[in-house]
Amino acid sequence: MAQKPSIPKGTRDFGQIEMARRNYIFDTIKSVFSLYGFQQIETPAMENLSTLMGKYGEEGDKLLFRIQNSGEKAALAPEKGLRYDLTVPFARYVVQHREELQFPFKRFQIQPVWRADRPQKGRYREFYQCDVDVIGSDSLIGELELIQIVEEVYRRLGIRVCLHINNRKILAGIAEVIGAPDKMIDITVAIDKLDKIGVEAVNKELEERGLYAEQVAKLQPILNLSGSTQDKLTALRGILSESETGMKGIAEMEEVFRLVEATGVQLNIELDLCLARGLNYYTGAIFEVKALDAQIGSITGGGRYDNLTGIFGLPNVSGVGISFGADRIYDVLTELDLFPKELQSATKVLFATFGQEELRYALTWVKALRAQGVAVEVYPEPAKMKKQMGYADAKQIPYVAIVGGDEMASNTVMLKNMATGEQKQVTLSELMGNV
Amino acid sequence: MAQKPSIPKGTRDFGQIEMARRNYIFDTIKSVFSLYGFQQIETPAMENLSTLMGKYGEEGDKLLFRIQNSGEKAALAPEKGLRYDLTVPFARYVVQHREELQFPFKRFQIQPVWRADRPQKGRYREFYQCDVDVIGSDSLIGELELIQIVEEVYRRLGIRVCLHINNRKILAGIAEVIGAPDKMIDITVAIDKLDKIGVEAVNKELEERGLYAEQVAKLQPILNLSGSTQDKLTALRGILSESETGMKGIAEMEEVFRLVEATGVQLNIELDLCLARGLNYYTGAIFEVKALDAQIGSITGGGRYDNLTGIFGLPNVSGVGISFGADRIYDVLTELDLFPKELQSATKVLFATFGQEELRYALTWVKALRAQGVAVEVYPEPAKMKKQMGYADAKQIPYVAIVGGDEMASNTVMLKNMATGEQKQVTLSELMGNV
Repeated sequence: MAQKPSIPKGTRDFGQIEMARRNYIFDTIKSVFSLYGFQQIETPAMENLSTLMGKYGEEGDKLLFRIQNSGEKAALAPEKGLRYDLTVPFARYVVQHREELQFPFKRFQIQPVWRADRPQKGRYREFYQCDVDVIGSDSLIGELELIQIVEEVYRRLGIRVCLHINNRKILAGIAEVIGAPDKMIDITVAIDKLDKIGVEAVNKELEERGLYAEQVAKLQPILNLSGSTQDKLTALRGILSESETGMKGIAEMEEVFRLVEATGVQLNIELDLCLARGLNYYTGAIFEVKALDAQIGSITGGGRYDNLTGIFGLPNVSGVGISFGADRIYDVLTELDLFPKELQSATKVLFATFGQEELRYALTWVKALRAQGVAVEVYPEPAKMKKQMGYADAKQIPYVAIVGGDEMASNTVMLKNMATGEQKQVTLSELMGNV
Repeated sequence: MAQKPSIPKGTRDFGQIEMARRNYIFDTIKSVFSLYGFQQIETPAMENLSTLMGKYGEEGDKLLFRIQNSGEKAALAPEKGLRYDLTVPFARYVVQHREELQFPFKRFQIQPVWRADRPQKGRYREFYQCDVDVIGSDSLIGELELIQIVEEVYRRLGIRVCLHINNRKILAGIAEVIGAPDKMIDITVAIDKLDKIGVEAVNKELEERGLYAEQVAKLQPILNLSGSTQDKLTALRGILSESETGMKGIAEMEEVFRLVEATGVQLNIELDLCLARGLNYYTGAIFEVKALDAQIGSITGGGRYDNLTGIFGLPNVSGVGISFGADRIYDVLTELDLFPKELQSATKVLFATFGQEELRYALTWVKALRAQGVAVEVYPEPAKMKKQMGYADAKQIPYVAIVGGDEMASNTVMLKNMATGEQKQVTLSELMGNV
């Protein structure tokens, strides 16, 4: 026998149970998106390299998969690449189709992306992203609706989460008032370690990162912020009063909290000044969602951007979006055993027969059940009963309808409950009532 | 402004209405597959080139898109390619995972494939295939269930179709009894033109294709077959009596027709000896489905194969499968105006407001409606009413709930039916009853 075939490293096959579970996640998310009026789009797997290059930094460019037509000479530089995320194709889509689109444009997109990363546990070269964005409005109702979507998706999935929120304008304000406007990212990265390494080590790191002692001193009230979100925002108002940008960030944050309260959002929301994702492109709110009962990092994240489409020549279009991490959500649902049990098998009944005549008889039952919307299978030949039962068992089909001569004579089947082992002879209408 | 961005030739963006329509097709097909116990799998977009090469003939190899890591030197030959169809990855999957799978293995798969074909009308470089197969059983119940699936899918979609059926063993038998076993494909191709060019021209072509006059003479009873399917099969029984293969093909065909009749299949099914698709791999039944009310060629096709997994070292595993052509089905539904009207917009109501206070008021209504499962949107700022109405109009949202001071005072909204222009003031519970 030839060598067993395989797939490229970092890629995966998804079998039937994995697909049922993945579809459960995607369907849950999609149905919530739809309630909020977001509609699906899809873009091609391959984009022109000119669309992709230079959008993800030097490191990102190296992780692009390039595509060559078979006919092309190896010497010819490839002109196409596989999409690296859904954000750049979305920006390209908005600019390319701007005449046809209705703004604010609310879209979601669930498609695979590819990165030539070194494969490792939990990191793949092909994985799905699941993005939702509203673009063409700077209204903070965008932020509110994304928060409501996070609440509803995780409520439906049964995962307890905390949403961390920050605002880039506040971070910029902090850097500004301590006199180090170019050190915003250094400051945020250092603050992020506060819980782990303590205030003294953070101060040391800040100095190593080039802040003067005086600037570090000015930062202390921020490191010592405590109390409720409202307390923190009030304190920040004092600290940032000299920074127009900082004050704008606080006003945005306060308005988001007001909207959240006015609409009765129950989600845990935490003001988190350490949250620093996407500072290269986010200009306002920054979000990150963590599962409370699993140690897995961020399972959803996003933020507001004011110039996403600028890279394609359409500046000053504000939008806000988040991305659900399907692979991590899958892992959390697995770890916490939260997948619905009925995802195991769509098939409710397998018909198992003792002979060709019984098989024909079973086909009419099968047809009647399917006409009622019941998913059923018939084992396609009268194989040994053990084999037929084994098939049902392996596929976790909950009932087997056994057909022999007696059942045919009495117009019944012997219905076996595979969980309890219980058997009883039933008519077609009794069977329909049972499954 | 920079040059408008674009996508690679032969690829497509799918906007919101197209996606709603495509999802309608896929969801319809998927729900029928599920009724029959077929379950979904997915395989990676990229396969090892060793998996793909040599499987599609020399022409096919040229149409493979090859993938290069960005880090790789151009001189290094790429080792990966984008999948060209779902059949070879399916065969690879079955062989790779054979220890975990339950046979007969019933799977469906709906994913894009890529071919470096010259793009032209209706031919794309990226398109979805939608395949359903049962592998690991030679029972003709496989053929029956695929026929039933075709019937049910097109019944649900509202497309009138005819299913053409042939059997490779009958074609082989014909070639055998006229003494030209190596000319099976030539004979079938020539017969295929019978309707168009008439019997004399066909005979001439057969001679040009290397058949002796005596062989052409022996073929005449086949060209003259007429009457019902049963009449044709009876005549073929006489003609092919000397060919074991041919007689086996007739027996299979007869059994399929018996099963179809016994289970009350209503579909138009036509025995079609000219049907010659996939003769390189099909070994038994061959199917093709044509829409009766649209001139578009085949919209579904498939057949039985006895050695699909042989290419990966697992011989003699029989299976049968069909593939639904989503793009062509889309075109038929468009041409015949058969897409459900409600696919236009998922959103039932847009809330349009006259000011910030009204916007806050609307948010509580919006929340209550979503909690009841009604998809609604709120225009995120109190823009000019004309702009807000224009948004609803462009997105074909059927109702607009207008909120001004009067409505807030009376705890109502002014509900406008966008189709009729009719307006009335309604309470929340009245609104829920209306949409």
